[in-house]
Amino acid sequence: MKVLITGGAGFLGQRLARELLARGALRMTPQGAGAAPEPITELVLLDVTQASRPDDARVRIEVGDITQRDVLERVIDAETAVIFHLAAILSSEAEADFELGMRINVDATRTLLDVCRARGHKPRVVFTSSVAVYGGELPEEVQDDTALNPESSYGTQKAIAELLLCDYSRRGFVDGRALRLPTVSVRPGKPNGAASSFASAIMREPLNGETTVCPVSGATPVLLISPRMAIQCLVAGSEIDAAALGERRIVNLPGISTSVDEMVETLSQVGGPAAVARVEWEPDATVERIVCSWPASWNTKRARTLHFPADASYHAIVQAYLEDELHAPKVPHLRLPHLHLPHRRH
Amino acid sequence: MKVLITGGAGFLGQRLARELLARGALRMTPQGAGAAPEPITELVLLDVTQASRPDDARVRIEVGDITQRDVLERVIDAETAVIFHLAAILSSEAEADFELGMRINVDATRTLLDVCRARGHKPRVVFTSSVAVYGGELPEEVQDDTALNPESSYGTQKAIAELLLCDYSRRGFVDGRALRLPTVSVRPGKPNGAASSFASAIMREPLNGETTVCPVSGATPVLLISPRMAIQCLVAGSEIDAAALGERRIVNLPGISTSVDEMVETLSQVGGPAAVARVEWEPDATVERIVCSWPASWNTKRARTLHFPADASYHAIVQAYLEDELHAPKVPHLRLPHLHLPHRRH
Repeated sequence: MKVLITGGAGFLGQRLARELLARGALRMTPQGAGAAPEPITELVLLDVTQASRPDDARVRIEVGDITQRDVLERVIDAETAVIFHLAAILSSEAEADFELGMRINVDATRTLLDVCRARGHKPRVVFTSSVAVYGGELPEEVQDDTALNPESSYGTQKAIAELLLCDYSRRGFVDGRALRLPTVSVRPGKPNGAASSFASAIMREPLNGETTVCPVSGATPVLLISPRMAIQCLVAGSEIDAAALGERRIVNLPGISTSVDEMVETLSQVGGPAAVARVEWEPDATVERIVCSWPASWNTKRARTLHFPADASYHAIVQAYLEDELHAPKVPHLRLPHLHLPHRRH
Repeated sequence: MKVLITGGAGFLGQRLARELLARGALRMTPQGAGAAPEPITELVLLDVTQASRPDDARVRIEVGDITQRDVLERVIDAETAVIFHLAAILSSEAEADFELGMRINVDATRTLLDVCRARGHKPRVVFTSSVAVYGGELPEEVQDDTALNPESSYGTQKAIAELLLCDYSRRGFVDGRALRLPTVSVRPGKPNGAASSFASAIMREPLNGETTVCPVSGATPVLLISPRMAIQCLVAGSEIDAAALGERRIVNLPGISTSVDEMVETLSQVGGPAAVARVEWEPDATVERIVCSWPASWNTKRARTLHFPADASYHAIVQAYLEDELHAPKVPHLRLPHLHLPHRRH
């Protein structure tokens, strides 16, 4: 079967591609139903920029604007069994450029669903939604039945895309799964267009010997998921049996509730006072408003019932970053006194 | 100032037009703030069909497809202070014709908001949303913070339009107010494209000496608002001060929780056994599924705090229908033993 990743040149897209190629197959029938996982014969990485090509004959790179229907028609055919729809304009960028956010986060998603519908084979569509769909007055712990009141255009656009995905699923046009991701941290590389970009930068830059500007106060609560776990959850989301999901196509993925202060405390444990000294504090009202509208905690009973994996702690998240991106054991100046995570792979 | 009604040829649009012309002005500043209500100098009735023209020089009739941007540009200018956006494809029709529902309920709403944004004067947009945005597992009484899980394309499309209205309001493009209407009953005239069309027909047709087919069981709970009260709420929604609404632009309007059995009981009181005998029972699974996914009751504390008026009872709703549409005192064969509603006009 064929698998498509939109946003295939992005960090999560690239990492997901590596994971899928390593696995080589996805389970398309319920566990225990007898059938073997189905081999991935072609993995299409679509992005507006050229995606890095893993050295693998199964990979097909496609460059194109996802808002163009013909681009999506080129990469979705009747053998495309699973689509990971990751392409998105992130929160700060969607707040700064309203039209761009609407075009990519809403219109392109709708076009993608329409192309699937026209193909008629009801592919699985795994859509990355976000903690940002919530806002307004929230209970201390957000529940599955808590109303969405997004306070950013990004959150609004993700909520609209969720509604579309659910209705297209209900009508049998696609087999959709909207996974609401906590803030993904620690991302490697450069700051991105997310209001929550600081949640990676505050650990990444100081450990790279660079200064970083934190736009929110230390008390700011954040809900985090490691890139490693985000990928595992995306794969799990593609393998869940539709019957187990039922009518409800949305899952709040497990996250770690922490605060910026706790993150800095961990940074101190890993990098010492020199690393902490590289954090500069410069509040940005827009970023603070957006980030503080998101839930700091949500009930993940449903995700656990559906067997989504979860990070163990913020320490575990940092440990994963050190292992995956900094090859920690080989970096002598990093101190890891409290970081003893078993190498749990789900 | 100018006022626009989309769906101006429809039942609610026509009735709202009459009410606005009778009032002659709308209060655009908070009560007690000193300023007088602002006179309506032009009332534009836009619809895809020719709206009936009240004999009034302030009225301008426009015929056009609301999905066309130039049509909306023709009827919205910098003096358009209030827009009542009523044009919609109703629930059964949107379920039967998916594209049409998306085009009118989502795309036209977005185009309308975009035209307002381009005009730059932040008009008040009063949007009629619906009980149908809710669905899935609901508490006995839906609360303001209950999540939406629409189980119809109509409900999905209304929920998307609400999200757009809220974000456009938050960004200062419009001053939006989304009023979630219970099922409007008793509507005069013919059955319409709503799944809840029976909620009017079950009273209207038997009192007109005609048979009607009820597609749901007697135990089906329904949440109703009279046309009279719906109009009063639309006007109230246009007059509320933005500061009183705050960030939250959505209001669940007061409704009367009743059941089909209770409606038939009232029909019996009004029209006797002959009228009841004109109700035929023929369950329609699609209608039943849609209608039963809607809340039978919701908390309207916020609506009451914002001074929205409310029907007193189902009897009062029927009484209003008899007065407004059948001129009841002049209809000798109608018995109204229990219907003693004071002629309360808000």
